[in-house]
Amino acid sequence: MPRMKEIIPAGAASSGMPLSPAIRWGDLLFVSGIVAADPATRQIVGTTVEEQVTFILDKLGELLAAAGSGYEHVLKVTCFLADGGDFAAWNSTYVNYFPSAAPARTTVVAGFPGPEIKVEVEVIAGIP
Amino acid sequence: MPRMKEIIPAGAASSGMPLSPAIRWGDLLFVSGIVAADPATRQIVGTTVEEQVTFILDKLGELLAAAGSGYEHVLKVTCFLADGGDFAAWNSTYVNYFPSAAPARTTVVAGFPGPEIKVEVEVIAGIP
Amino acid sequence: MPRMKEIIPAGAASSGMPLSPAIRWGDLLFVSGIVAADPATRQIVGTTVEEQVTFILDKLGELLAAAGSGYEHVLKVTCFLADGGDFAAWNSTYVNYFPSAAPARTTVVAGFPGPEIKVEVEVIAGIP
Repeated sequence: MPRMKEIIPAGAASSGMPLSPAIRWGDLLFVSGIVAADPATRQIVGTTVEEQVTFILDKLGELLAAAGSGYEHVLKVTCFLADGGDFAAWNSTYVNYFPSAAPARTTVVAGFPGPEIKVEVEVIAGIP
Repeated sequence: MPRMKEIIPAGAASSGMPLSPAIRWGDLLFVSGIVAADPATRQIVGTTVEEQVTFILDKLGELLAAAGSGYEHVLKVTCFLADGGDFAAWNSTYVNYFPSAAPARTTVVAGFPGPEIKVEVEVIAGIP
Repeated sequence: MPRMKEIIPAGAASSGMPLSPAIRWGDLLFVSGIVAADPATRQIVGTTVEEQVTFILDKLGELLAAAGSGYEHVLKVTCFLADGGDFAAWNSTYVNYFPSAAPARTTVVAGFPGPEIKVEVEVIAGIP
Protein backbone atom coordinates (compact mmCIF):
# COMPACT_ATOMS: atom_id res chain seq x y z
CA MET A 1 0.00 0.00 0.00
CA PRO A 2 1.54 3.34 -0.96
CA ARG A 3 2.27 5.75 1.83
CA MET A 4 -0.41 8.42 2.28
CA LYS A 5 -0.23 11.80 3.95
CA GLU A 6 -2.32 12.21 7.08
CA ILE A 7 -3.97 15.39 8.33
CA ILE A 8 -3.26 16.25 11.97
CA PRO A 9 -5.37 16.47 13.98
CA ALA A 10 -7.59 13.91 12.29
CA GLY A 11 -10.83 15.53 11.17
CA ALA A 12 -9.45 19.00 11.85
CA ALA A 13 -12.18 21.57 11.53
CA SER A 14 -11.42 24.10 8.86
CA SER A 15 -9.88 27.33 10.07
CA GLY A 16 -11.34 29.06 7.06
CA MET A 17 -7.92 28.92 5.45
CA PRO A 18 -6.97 26.39 2.75
CA LEU A 19 -4.42 24.61 4.92
CA SER A 20 -4.14 21.76 7.39
CA PRO A 21 -2.76 22.44 10.86
CA ALA A 22 -0.15 19.74 10.29
CA ILE A 23 0.59 16.89 7.91
CA ARG A 24 2.16 13.58 8.82
CA TRP A 25 4.28 11.70 6.30
CA GLY A 26 5.85 8.58 7.72
CA ASP A 27 7.88 9.62 10.74
CA LEU A 28 7.89 13.30 9.82
CA LEU A 29 5.39 15.99 10.83
CA PHE A 30 5.12 19.27 8.93
CA VAL A 31 3.37 21.92 11.03
CA SER A 32 1.83 24.98 9.36
CA GLY A 33 3.04 28.41 10.35
CA ILE A 34 1.23 29.23 13.58
CA VAL A 35 0.17 32.74 14.55
CA ALA A 36 -1.48 33.76 17.80
CA ALA A 37 -5.01 33.65 16.41
CA ASP A 38 -7.95 32.76 18.60
CA PRO A 39 -9.52 29.70 16.94
CA ALA A 40 -13.09 30.91 17.54
CA THR A 41 -12.84 34.55 16.57
CA ARG A 42 -9.66 34.39 14.41
CA GLN A 43 -8.57 37.59 16.13
CA ILE A 44 -4.90 37.91 17.04
CA VAL A 45 -4.39 37.63 20.79
CA GLY A 46 -1.53 39.08 22.80
CA THR A 47 -0.02 42.51 22.41
CA THR A 48 3.56 41.48 23.21
CA VAL A 49 5.79 39.01 21.42
CA GLU A 50 6.09 37.02 24.68
CA GLU A 51 2.32 36.57 24.81
CA GLN A 52 2.08 35.61 21.17
CA VAL A 53 5.01 33.15 21.39
CA THR A 54 3.46 31.51 24.46
CA PHE A 55 0.14 31.13 22.63
CA ILE A 56 1.89 29.71 19.56
CA LEU A 57 4.14 27.23 21.37
CA ASP A 58 1.25 26.02 23.55
CA LYS A 59 -0.74 25.41 20.37
CA LEU A 60 2.28 23.65 18.86
CA GLY A 61 2.36 21.32 21.85
CA GLU A 62 -1.26 20.30 21.20
CA LEU A 63 -0.53 19.55 17.55
CA LEU A 64 2.60 17.58 18.41
CA ALA A 65 0.69 15.52 20.96
CA ALA A 66 -2.08 14.82 18.45
CA ALA A 67 0.55 13.32 16.13
CA GLY A 68 2.28 11.22 18.76
CA SER A 69 5.22 13.60 18.79
CA GLY A 70 6.29 16.19 21.38
CA TYR A 71 8.56 19.17 21.98
CA GLU A 72 11.54 16.87 22.48
CA HIS A 73 11.13 15.50 18.96
CA VAL A 74 11.05 18.86 17.17
CA LEU A 75 13.77 18.85 14.52
CA LYS A 76 13.60 22.29 12.93
CA VAL A 77 11.93 25.57 13.85
CA THR A 78 11.55 28.57 11.56
CA CYS A 79 10.55 31.83 13.21
CA PHE A 80 9.41 34.93 11.37
CA LEU A 81 9.44 38.09 13.48
CA ALA A 82 7.79 41.35 12.44
CA ASP A 83 10.42 43.33 14.37
CA GLY A 84 14.04 42.25 14.81
CA GLY A 85 14.02 44.13 18.11
CA ASP A 86 11.88 41.30 19.49
CA PHE A 87 14.67 38.76 19.04
CA ALA A 88 15.68 38.68 22.73
CA ALA A 89 12.06 38.32 23.85
CA TRP A 90 11.54 35.51 21.35
CA ASN A 91 14.56 33.65 22.71
CA SER A 92 13.66 34.14 26.36
CA THR A 93 10.18 32.68 25.88
CA TYR A 94 11.30 29.99 23.44
CA VAL A 95 13.93 28.49 25.73
CA ASN A 96 11.24 27.54 28.27
CA TYR A 97 9.74 25.12 25.75
CA PHE A 98 13.06 23.70 24.56
CA PRO A 99 15.28 23.60 27.65
CA SER A 100 17.53 20.88 26.21
CA ALA A 101 18.35 19.17 22.91
CA ALA A 102 17.20 22.32 21.13
CA PRO A 103 15.99 21.94 17.55
CA ALA A 104 17.83 23.42 14.59
CA ARG A 105 16.39 26.89 14.10
CA THR A 106 16.25 29.88 11.78
CA THR A 107 14.89 33.30 12.78
CA VAL A 108 14.41 36.09 10.25
CA VAL A 109 12.39 39.28 9.99
CA ALA A 110 9.42 39.19 7.62
CA GLY A 111 6.05 40.79 7.14
CA PHE A 112 2.54 39.44 7.69
CA PRO A 113 -0.89 39.89 6.16
CA GLY A 114 -2.21 41.35 9.41
CA PRO A 115 -0.61 44.20 11.38
CA GLU A 116 -1.28 42.65 14.80
CA ILE A 117 0.89 39.62 14.02
CA LYS A 118 4.26 39.94 15.70
CA VAL A 119 5.54 36.43 15.17
CA GLU A 120 4.84 33.24 13.21
CA VAL A 121 6.45 29.87 13.89
CA GLU A 122 6.59 26.76 11.74
CA VAL A 123 8.04 23.39 12.66
CA ILE A 124 9.21 20.09 11.29
CA ALA A 125 9.08 17.36 13.94
CA GLY A 126 9.89 13.69 14.13
CA ILE A 127 7.41 11.04 15.19
CA PRO A 128 9.32 8.43 17.18
CA MET B 1 24.03 0.94 -2.13
CA PRO B 2 23.79 4.28 -0.35
CA ARG B 3 20.81 6.46 -1.12
CA MET B 4 21.53 9.15 -3.70
CA LYS B 5 19.70 12.37 -4.42
CA GLU B 6 17.99 12.60 -7.79
CA ILE B 7 17.46 15.72 -9.88
CA ILE B 8 13.88 16.26 -11.08
CA PRO B 9 13.19 16.38 -13.93
CA ALA B 10 16.00 14.05 -14.98
CA GLY B 11 18.42 15.90 -17.25
CA ALA B 12 16.81 19.24 -16.42
CA ALA B 13 18.19 21.94 -18.66
CA SER B 14 19.89 24.64 -16.67
CA SER B 15 17.81 27.72 -15.99
CA GLY B 16 21.01 29.72 -15.77
CA MET B 17 20.69 29.60 -11.99
CA PRO B 18 22.77 27.25 -9.81
CA LEU B 19 19.80 25.21 -8.65
CA SER B 20 17.78 22.15 -9.60
CA PRO B 21 14.04 22.50 -10.15
CA ALA B 22 13.48 19.76 -7.58
CA ILE B 23 15.43 17.09 -5.72
CA ARG B 24 14.14 13.65 -4.79
CA TRP B 25 15.44 11.92 -1.68
CA GLY B 26 13.71 8.64 -1.02
CA ASP B 27 10.00 9.35 -0.76
CA LEU B 28 10.46 13.10 -0.32
CA LEU B 29 10.59 15.77 -3.01
CA PHE B 30 12.06 19.21 -2.34
CA VAL B 31 10.89 21.74 -4.92
CA SER B 32 12.82 24.99 -5.45
CA GLY B 33 11.07 28.27 -4.92
CA ILE B 34 9.10 28.88 -8.12
CA VAL B 35 8.46 32.33 -9.54
CA ALA B 36 6.39 33.15 -12.62
CA ALA B 37 9.37 33.29 -15.00
CA ASP B 38 9.02 32.32 -18.63
CA PRO B 39 11.51 29.48 -19.12
CA ALA B 40 12.66 30.77 -22.51
CA THR B 41 13.03 34.48 -21.85
CA ARG B 42 13.33 34.38 -18.02
CA GLN B 43 11.01 37.38 -17.97
CA ILE B 44 8.38 37.47 -15.24
CA VAL B 45 4.92 36.87 -16.65
CA GLY B 46 1.62 38.01 -15.19
CA THR B 47 0.89 41.41 -13.73
CA THR B 48 -1.48 40.20 -11.02
CA VAL B 49 -0.83 37.81 -8.18
CA GLU B 50 -3.60 35.54 -9.52
CA GLU B 51 -1.81 35.22 -12.86
CA GLN B 52 1.54 34.58 -11.23
CA VAL B 53 0.13 32.02 -8.79
CA THR B 54 -1.60 30.18 -11.64
CA PHE B 55 1.66 30.06 -13.59
CA ILE B 56 3.57 28.84 -10.53
CA LEU B 57 1.10 26.15 -9.46
CA ASP B 58 0.77 24.87 -13.05
CA LYS B 59 4.57 24.59 -13.18
CA LEU B 60 4.51 22.85 -9.80
CA GLY B 61 2.11 20.28 -11.19
CA GLU B 62 4.55 19.45 -13.99
CA LEU B 63 7.41 18.97 -11.53
CA LEU B 64 5.29 16.83 -9.23
CA ALA B 65 4.23 14.64 -12.15
CA ALA B 66 7.84 14.26 -13.28
CA ALA B 67 8.67 12.86 -9.84
CA GLY B 68 5.71 10.50 -9.61
CA SER B 69 4.02 12.75 -7.09
CA GLY B 70 1.01 15.06 -7.49
CA TYR B 71 -0.90 17.89 -5.86
CA GLU B 72 -2.61 15.45 -3.50
CA HIS B 73 0.77 14.41 -2.07
CA VAL B 74 2.04 17.90 -1.29
CA LEU B 75 2.96 18.02 2.39
CA LYS B 76 4.12 21.59 3.00
CA VAL B 77 3.86 24.83 1.06
CA THR B 78 5.75 28.02 1.84
CA CYS B 79 4.54 31.17 0.12
CA PHE B 80 6.42 34.45 0.02
CA LEU B 81 4.30 37.43 -1.03
CA ALA B 82 5.72 40.82 -1.99
CA ASP B 83 2.58 42.52 -0.69
CA GLY B 84 0.51 41.29 2.23
CA GLY B 85 -2.51 42.90 0.56
CA ASP B 86 -2.38 40.02 -1.95
CA PHE B 87 -3.17 37.43 0.72
CA ALA B 88 -6.83 37.02 -0.25
CA ALA B 89 -5.98 36.70 -3.95
CA TRP B 90 -3.30 34.12 -3.12
CA ASN B 91 -5.82 32.06 -1.16
CA SER B 92 -8.55 32.26 -3.75
CA THR B 93 -6.28 30.97 -6.52
CA TYR B 94 -4.51 28.44 -4.31
CA VAL B 95 -7.65 26.68 -3.16
CA ASN B 96 -8.41 25.62 -6.74
CA TYR B 97 -5.27 23.48 -6.75
CA PHE B 98 -5.77 22.04 -3.28
CA PRO B 99 -9.52 21.62 -2.89
CA SER B 100 -9.16 18.94 -0.19
CA ALA B 101 -6.56 17.47 2.15
CA ALA B 102 -4.74 20.80 2.02
CA PRO B 103 -1.01 20.78 2.77
CA ALA B 104 0.49 22.42 5.82
CA ARG B 105 1.31 25.97 4.78
CA THR B 106 3.11 29.14 5.80
CA THR B 107 2.62 32.51 4.09
CA VAL B 108 4.79 35.52 4.90
CA VAL B 109 5.73 38.79 3.25
CA ALA B 110 9.26 39.01 1.86
CA GLY B 111 11.22 40.77 -0.86
CA PHE B 112 12.61 39.49 -4.14
CA PRO B 113 15.59 40.20 -6.36
CA GLY B 114 13.31 41.44 -9.16
CA PRO B 115 10.56 44.06 -8.76
CA GLU B 116 8.08 42.24 -11.03
CA ILE B 117 7.96 39.21 -8.73
CA LYS B 118 4.79 39.27 -6.66
CA VAL B 119 4.94 35.76 -5.24
CA GLU B 120 7.27 32.79 -4.84
CA VAL B 121 6.16 29.31 -3.75
CA GLU B 122 8.25 26.39 -2.53
CA VAL B 123 7.02 22.91 -1.69
CA ILE B 124 7.92 19.67 0.03
CA ALA B 125 5.94 16.74 -1.38
CA GLY B 126 5.71 13.05 -0.74
CA ILE B 127 6.26 10.41 -3.40
CA PRO B 128 3.84 7.58 -2.72
CA MET C 1 13.82 1.18 19.78
CA PRO C 2 12.12 4.38 18.64
CA ARG C 3 14.10 6.70 16.41
CA MET C 4 15.72 9.58 18.29
CA LYS C 5 16.96 12.92 17.03
CA GLU C 6 20.69 13.48 17.23
CA ILE C 7 22.48 16.80 17.78
CA ILE C 8 25.24 17.55 15.27
CA PRO C 9 28.05 17.95 16.08
CA ALA C 10 27.77 15.59 19.05
CA GLY C 11 28.34 17.51 22.27
CA ALA C 12 28.11 20.83 20.45
CA ALA C 13 29.09 23.66 22.75
CA SER C 14 26.31 26.13 23.21
CA SER C 15 26.48 29.21 21.03
CA GLY C 16 24.52 31.08 23.66
CA MET C 17 21.44 30.66 21.51
CA PRO C 18 18.72 28.07 22.22
CA LEU C 19 19.40 26.05 19.10
CA SER C 20 21.50 23.16 17.87
CA PRO C 21 23.81 23.68 14.88
CA ALA C 22 22.13 20.77 13.14
CA ILE C 23 19.79 17.88 13.91
CA ARG C 24 19.93 14.43 12.38
CA TRP C 25 16.76 12.40 11.97
CA GLY C 26 17.33 9.13 10.17
CA ASP C 27 18.89 9.95 6.82
CA LEU C 28 17.95 13.65 6.96
CA LEU C 29 19.96 16.52 8.39
CA PHE C 30 18.34 19.84 9.30
CA VAL C 31 20.93 22.62 9.56
CA SER C 32 20.14 25.82 11.45
CA GLY C 33 20.26 29.12 9.64
CA ILE C 34 23.94 30.06 9.52
CA VAL C 35 25.17 33.64 9.64
CA ALA C 36 28.79 34.78 9.37
CA ALA C 37 29.34 35.01 13.13
CA ASP C 38 32.74 34.35 14.65
CA PRO C 39 32.16 31.48 17.09
CA ALA C 40 34.41 32.99 19.76
CA THR C 41 33.33 36.61 19.72
CA ARG C 42 29.88 36.20 18.06
CA GLN C 43 30.72 39.26 15.99
CA ILE C 44 29.67 39.23 12.36
CA VAL C 45 32.68 38.87 10.07
CA GLY C 46 32.95 40.02 6.46
CA THR C 47 31.73 43.31 5.08
CA THR C 48 30.69 41.95 1.67
CA VAL C 49 28.13 39.31 0.86
CA GLU C 50 30.87 37.26 -0.86
CA GLU C 51 32.89 37.14 2.37
CA GLN C 52 29.86 36.26 4.46
CA VAL C 53 28.70 33.55 2.04
CA THR C 54 32.19 32.02 1.98
CA PHE C 55 32.26 31.95 5.80
CA ILE C 56 28.78 30.41 5.93
CA LEU C 57 29.32 27.73 3.29
CA ASP C 58 32.69 26.75 4.80
CA LYS C 59 30.94 26.36 8.15
CA LEU C 60 28.21 24.35 6.45
CA GLY C 61 30.86 22.00 5.08
CA GLU C 62 32.11 21.31 8.60
CA LEU C 63 28.61 20.53 9.86
CA LEU C 64 27.87 18.27 6.89
CA ALA C 65 31.11 16.36 7.44
CA ALA C 66 30.33 15.96 11.14
CA ALA C 67 27.07 14.25 10.16
CA GLY C 68 28.57 11.97 7.51
CA SER C 69 27.02 14.08 4.77
CA GLY C 70 28.65 16.52 2.33
CA TYR C 71 27.93 19.28 -0.16
CA GLU C 72 26.97 16.71 -2.80
CA HIS C 73 24.17 15.44 -0.57
CA VAL C 74 22.54 18.81 0.11
CA LEU C 75 18.90 18.59 -0.92
CA LYS C 76 17.46 22.05 -0.26
CA VAL C 77 18.98 25.45 0.45
CA THR C 78 17.09 28.49 1.67
CA CYS C 79 18.89 31.81 1.44
CA PHE C 80 17.75 35.03 3.09
CA LEU C 81 19.44 38.16 1.74
CA ALA C 82 19.25 41.56 3.41
CA ASP C 83 19.55 43.27 0.01
CA GLY C 84 18.17 41.87 -3.23
CA GLY C 85 20.97 43.71 -5.01
CA ASP C 86 23.33 41.05 -3.62
CA PHE C 87 21.64 38.29 -5.61
CA ALA C 88 24.35 38.09 -8.31
CA ALA C 89 27.14 38.05 -5.72
CA TRP C 90 25.33 35.32 -3.78
CA ASN C 91 25.07 33.19 -6.93
CA SER C 92 28.68 33.69 -8.01
CA THR C 93 30.03 32.56 -4.64
CA TYR C 94 27.46 29.80 -4.17
CA VAL C 95 28.20 28.05 -7.45
CA ASN C 96 31.76 27.31 -6.31
CA TYR C 97 30.39 25.08 -3.56
CA PHE C 98 27.77 23.38 -5.71
CA PRO C 99 29.34 23.05 -9.16
CA SER C 100 27.09 20.15 -10.16
CA ALA C 101 23.89 18.41 -9.07
CA ALA C 102 22.80 21.66 -7.46
CA PRO C 103 20.30 21.43 -4.60
CA ALA C 104 16.78 22.78 -4.83
CA ARG C 105 16.94 26.37 -3.63
CA THR C 106 14.89 29.37 -2.60
CA THR C 107 16.30 32.89 -2.21
CA VAL C 108 14.25 35.73 -0.77
CA VAL C 109 14.92 39.10 0.83
CA ALA C 110 14.33 39.31 4.58
CA GLY C 111 15.54 41.21 7.61
CA PHE C 112 17.78 40.17 10.47
CA PRO C 113 18.16 40.95 14.16
CA GLY C 114 21.60 42.50 13.55
CA PRO C 115 22.38 45.17 10.95
CA GLU C 116 25.75 43.65 9.95
CA ILE C 117 24.10 40.44 8.74
CA LYS C 118 23.88 40.44 4.95
CA VAL C 119 22.91 36.83 4.41
CA GLU C 120 21.66 33.74 6.25
CA VAL C 121 21.58 30.23 4.80
CA GLU C 122 19.75 27.13 6.02
CA VAL C 123 19.96 23.65 4.58
CA ILE C 124 18.32 20.24 4.53
CA ALA C 125 20.77 17.52 3.54
CA GLY C 126 20.68 13.80 3.06
CA ILE C 127 22.93 11.37 4.90
CA PRO C 128 23.81 8.58 2.46
